[in-house]
Amino acid sequence: MEPLKVGLLGCGVVGTEVARLLTEQSEEFARRVGAPLQLAGVAVRRLGRARGVDLDPGLFTTDSGALVDRCDIVIEVIGGIEPARTLIQRAMNSGASVVTANKALLAEDGESLFRTADQNGVDLYYEAAVAGAIPILRPLKESLVGDTVHRVLGIVNGTTNYVLDRMHSSGMGFSEAVAQAQSLGYAEADPTADVEGFDAAAKAAILASLAFHTRVTAADVHREGITEVTAADIASAERMRAVVKLLAICDRTVGPDGTPGVSVRVHPAMIPQNHPLAGVRDAYNAVFVQSQAAGELMFYGKGAGGAPTASAVLGDVVTVARNKVAGRRGPADSVHAGLPVRPMGEVITRYHISLDVLDRPGVLATVAGAFAEHGVSIETVRQHQHQSRQFDDETAAQRACLVVVTHAATDAALSSTVEALAHLDSVHAVESVMRVEGDT
Amino acid sequence: MEPLKVGLLGCGVVGTEVARLLTEQSEEFARRVGAPLQLAGVAVRRLGRARGVDLDPGLFTTDSGALVDRCDIVIEVIGGIEPARTLIQRAMNSGASVVTANKALLAEDGESLFRTADQNGVDLYYEAAVAGAIPILRPLKESLVGDTVHRVLGIVNGTTNYVLDRMHSSGMGFSEAVAQAQSLGYAEADPTADVEGFDAAAKAAILASLAFHTRVTAADVHREGITEVTAADIASAERMRAVVKLLAICDRTVGPDGTPGVSVRVHPAMIPQNHPLAGVRDAYNAVFVQSQAAGELMFYGKGAGGAPTASAVLGDVVTVARNKVAGRRGPADSVHAGLPVRPMGEVITRYHISLDVLDRPGVLATVAGAFAEHGVSIETVRQHQHQSRQFDDETAAQRACLVVVTHAATDAALSSTVEALAHLDSVHAVESVMRVEGDT
Repeated sequence: MEPLKVGLLGCGVVGTEVARLLTEQSEEFARRVGAPLQLAGVAVRRLGRARGVDLDPGLFTTDSGALVDRCDIVIEVIGGIEPARTLIQRAMNSGASVVTANKALLAEDGESLFRTADQNGVDLYYEAAVAGAIPILRPLKESLVGDTVHRVLGIVNGTTNYVLDRMHSSGMGFSEAVAQAQSLGYAEADPTADVEGFDAAAKAAILASLAFHTRVTAADVHREGITEVTAADIASAERMRAVVKLLAICDRTVGPDGTPGVSVRVHPAMIPQNHPLAGVRDAYNAVFVQSQAAGELMFYGKGAGGAPTASAVLGDVVTVARNKVAGRRGPADSVHAGLPVRPMGEVITRYHISLDVLDRPGVLATVAGAFAEHGVSIETVRQHQHQSRQFDDETAAQRACLVVVTHAATDAALSSTVEALAHLDSVHAVESVMRVEGDT
Repeated sequence: MEPLKVGLLGCGVVGTEVARLLTEQSEEFARRVGAPLQLAGVAVRRLGRARGVDLDPGLFTTDSGALVDRCDIVIEVIGGIEPARTLIQRAMNSGASVVTANKALLAEDGESLFRTADQNGVDLYYEAAVAGAIPILRPLKESLVGDTVHRVLGIVNGTTNYVLDRMHSSGMGFSEAVAQAQSLGYAEADPTADVEGFDAAAKAAILASLAFHTRVTAADVHREGITEVTAADIASAERMRAVVKLLAICDRTVGPDGTPGVSVRVHPAMIPQNHPLAGVRDAYNAVFVQSQAAGELMFYGKGAGGAPTASAVLGDVVTVARNKVAGRRGPADSVHAGLPVRPMGEVITRYHISLDVLDRPGVLATVAGAFAEHGVSIETVRQHQHQSRQFDDETAAQRACLVVVTHAATDAALSSTVEALAHLDSVHAVESVMRVEGDT
């Protein structure tokens, strides 16, 4: 067989590992594919930089467009919207299949990319875009295609999982944990995309699209990061035998009028310590799937890093290469269901609320009344003294901390309740509000 | 589009659930496939029996051959070697794609089935054959096809996992735990296939074939069941902070002369309590994969039952139906590597050995000498008195229990050591021998 020409766009941590494995294992790949894979070029921004891989210097080029035009398969690991989008479109329009790890682009503009793939009869694969090495997209798209997925609950951002795990294990605050994550290479110098939940939101959009056969974009995802999670929240979670995780939550929903829809959100939440996701430590990722016939499934592994991401990229490269050799395409993404994305206010969830209240008779009755007024039912209330270091003795004597965990209600009802509580005379401050998920 | 005719062979627990979901969700399946799936018939051994699904009685037939001949897709959930094999061959020879859950048949005679599939250009899918609802075969075959799998470690038999879990949690013996599993429907009236490891061995052969691109049959698998696991073994495991699991272990190996190979085995083993597989309780299944680039991955879920198995079957049905609509085949199994299967004696493992010894000076030196003679290095030795109920007081005073955990060595060296120990004058009995796995 003629070799298949593979073009690599980007040679950072992931690209380097992809190039290394492609070169080192070329004989094995040729056997798996049925034709040799020939690395035809590596597009970089600047030539002459030291790379972590020993390649013929002639392979490097700054002319990514020309590289794309002469390849059968293009691997895009540049990231970001442009020039990645233009290059992927150009590659598919010239008949190449594309493998990408670009979650941001897929979550923003997947629709136009899939249209171009369809028009040209080429493959667009992106297993590496969600949860790194963990095979989760192919199982959702193909293995579970005969089932009805009800919910996908994922820890899909390693940085925030590391930060929250450190806060739990050491009692340290958010900033200190982020600094530690940065010093160990688990967080970028500018950690915004991770800690504000943008990265997880893009992945949530991709997971929801596949799980529900519906196009969901990043803009459809309700997003809250972990920057406001405090050491007190973590301590509160531990008192209720829970852990705080940044979750991507994709739900198949039924609206008040009975119409089906989906809701997709990313936010920190307390989950019980005995939930399978609670044991996901450090920078690991895991995706928990609940479906009608299969029941509960969990997929666990490394969510980032050069080698794990390269594993996912190369799995796709071999697959699209086999398809090229066989003259076929893989199954296209199916978005036939086209379910509406429901607003966050309609989501059914539970809240954990800590209130700083005046320690006087009748306060609990007033607070309970505010919940009742909004139709929110209370599951537990716990009252305790403030820790002395928070207030001087006199203030502490007049104040108490009230921790309320609600039963399930709409997010709109719960957030109106919190707003009403903040205006009560007997409530000095709403100290923390966090959703509670993962009841089984 | 013309409907695709689907024939169902077998209408037991799984078949019933498959028929029910195919019928109830026919509109949704039509949208996912791009053509309606029409249940064309259900082959059963006897007509007129009550079934757990409300189907047109005219669909049932005892003429499975005639059904197979007029279908585009055949689902085989009869199990066993014949008539399943003949029917699957006939279906493929008449141009139908086949979905099967038949691990025994695939592990015994997969080669001839795949050859027939290739000759006829049809699909043969079997996700349900291993670990029920858990998508593990497609990830191994496709997602990890760009990586090098080093080891697959699986809990792939729910019955034995339930039995061992009960022995751990209650202290009960093997027979009592099996009886309880039977009363709850987790074990068959004749539990041989499960407790002797036949079921797990068939699955191990399938996992190894996909992981190592090599045809492995059930006969290649070293197999030991759990019938000889005692309450004392379980207690011993707990003392070393381990749990006993029936494991399917598939290893990529390098022989003494440097040649690559594979080893595949099923046996009970102690694994550390902090290993991800140790937390797999009840009748759940999980598969742990170690690969070069991806690192450690785990797949977890329900390994049996009507609905979970139907989820896997229907995922395959939709996939092969989409392939039919698109006029393509899915990727065939790749067995190009053809690695030799190495004998059990060459496998590198560790042993946990309990000895009943005479309590007199020099015994430990004699025992240690036997290990040294066979080149086996000892990791830990623990000596303790026998529990009084085992012996009368006089005997107990003269005896001690010596528990030895070895470093890694070949299984041949370890088993020769055990044989030599049994012949020592100072060793009254070798009370238990179990392998230790899962160090990370």
